[in-house]
Amino acid sequence: METPEPADEPTDSIGPWAARAADPQYRAAVLDLLGALAYGELSAFERLAEDAKFAPGIAEKAALARMASAEYQHFQLLHDRLAEVGADPVAVMEPFVEPLENFHRMTAPSDWLEGLVKAYVGDAIATDFYREVAVRLDDDTRDLVLRVMSDTGHAGFAVERVRQAIAEDPRVGGRLALWGRRLMGEALSQAQRVVAERDALSNLLVGGAEVRGFDLVEVGKMFNRITETHTKRMAALGLAS
Amino acid sequence: METPEPADEPTDSIGPWAARAADPQYRAAVLDLLGALAYGELSAFERLAEDAKFAPGIAEKAALARMASAEYQHFQLLHDRLAEVGADPVAVMEPFVEPLENFHRMTAPSDWLEGLVKAYVGDAIATDFYREVAVRLDDDTRDLVLRVMSDTGHAGFAVERVRQAIAEDPRVGGRLALWGRRLMGEALSQAQRVVAERDALSNLLVGGAEVRGFDLVEVGKMFNRITETHTKRMAALGLAS
Repeated sequence: METPEPADEPTDSIGPWAARAADPQYRAAVLDLLGALAYGELSAFERLAEDAKFAPGIAEKAALARMASAEYQHFQLLHDRLAEVGADPVAVMEPFVEPLENFHRMTAPSDWLEGLVKAYVGDAIATDFYREVAVRLDDDTRDLVLRVMSDTGHAGFAVERVRQAIAEDPRVGGRLALWGRRLMGEALSQAQRVVAERDALSNLLVGGAEVRGFDLVEVGKMFNRITETHTKRMAALGLAS
Repeated sequence: METPEPADEPTDSIGPWAARAADPQYRAAVLDLLGALAYGELSAFERLAEDAKFAPGIAEKAALARMASAEYQHFQLLHDRLAEVGADPVAVMEPFVEPLENFHRMTAPSDWLEGLVKAYVGDAIATDFYREVAVRLDDDTRDLVLRVMSDTGHAGFAVERVRQAIAEDPRVGGRLALWGRRLMGEALSQAQRVVAERDALSNLLVGGAEVRGFDLVEVGKMFNRITETHTKRMAALGLAS
């Protein structure tokens, strides 16, 4: 995706996983992060595949299926990493099932265009978040997160289809702009809930004693950066947000 | 899967695709076959992903997602091959949309166990069919079909879960045995419809002038072999069929 901002700054390494994971708080935080990302990918797989039912034709169905399949591959990478570091992947994912299922339940698309916008926005927000979070991770976890991130961006086809639909009927733009706002609002709401409930993960984000840091204000700034990028992206799509 | 039968016989090559495709009837038959397999994989992806909603836990959901993702990869291979030989993949798949959607509509699982049995049976029937059909193809098409086939068989986890459910409540066995019969019946019914409607494909199966052959009786025998294998498989699963 386009947004270069913070993660492209040169970042100093905080060392390899083996060294950092000796700190139980750091370990717990990274497990939380990987668990949240893993279940996020699995639930994205499921919902994209489900939304493929709205596809107007075979080519469109195949495009969503391709995205869903990529999400599954990401899930597999994250899942295998959790197992590799001796965690129980299912137990680690468990706390994130409800917030992610809530998000998807609150944002179930009612037609093909809403599904496309959700696929595009979801993919893009995930990329932004991966980019933000990568900079504060040990080398091994960061490599994994960047590897998963480099394989996102399959949603490009959605942009063209949405633009075309708005060109054909400008009223569609108003409806989808509202929809984009709702997607972002629900995403932030569930993310904030997770930050509030998961101590270890929050510590990673706000910077505990052992973690290079930023504070709660910085978490707010991160959410703001992601929201700003989302707003620009919606505008580029022809949707005022 | 286990059934060694016909495809493991040494088969003489009928030559490469480039030589055989000069015969328009052969070309049309192979395009039909690849189109049917491709849409079969895409619709299997979609239905497996949808049936993941019944999964009782994260591990089970991930297992179905893995199968669905493998089906998508197969779809991609078949789709790319169609494009490579100059066909329009969407147009080639079109005639098979209705029979496959009919099959899935008539066999929508109503719970997790029915979904598991369908995943297992569908995977196994696909493998049997790939094996049967591979022997009468040019070298290049056969290599593709065998490559796709070699990556099936992800449904092993289903066997264990179904056996366990029957052990816990033997009445489940009776219900699932009926379900297995219905799956096979619908599969045969749609397959026979396709054979009746698609001249080129039927010619490949029954052996036209240019194609090494077997006749309509042989088509019946092929369906019988697949049915027999299915019956043995159901019995192994603890389901009289």
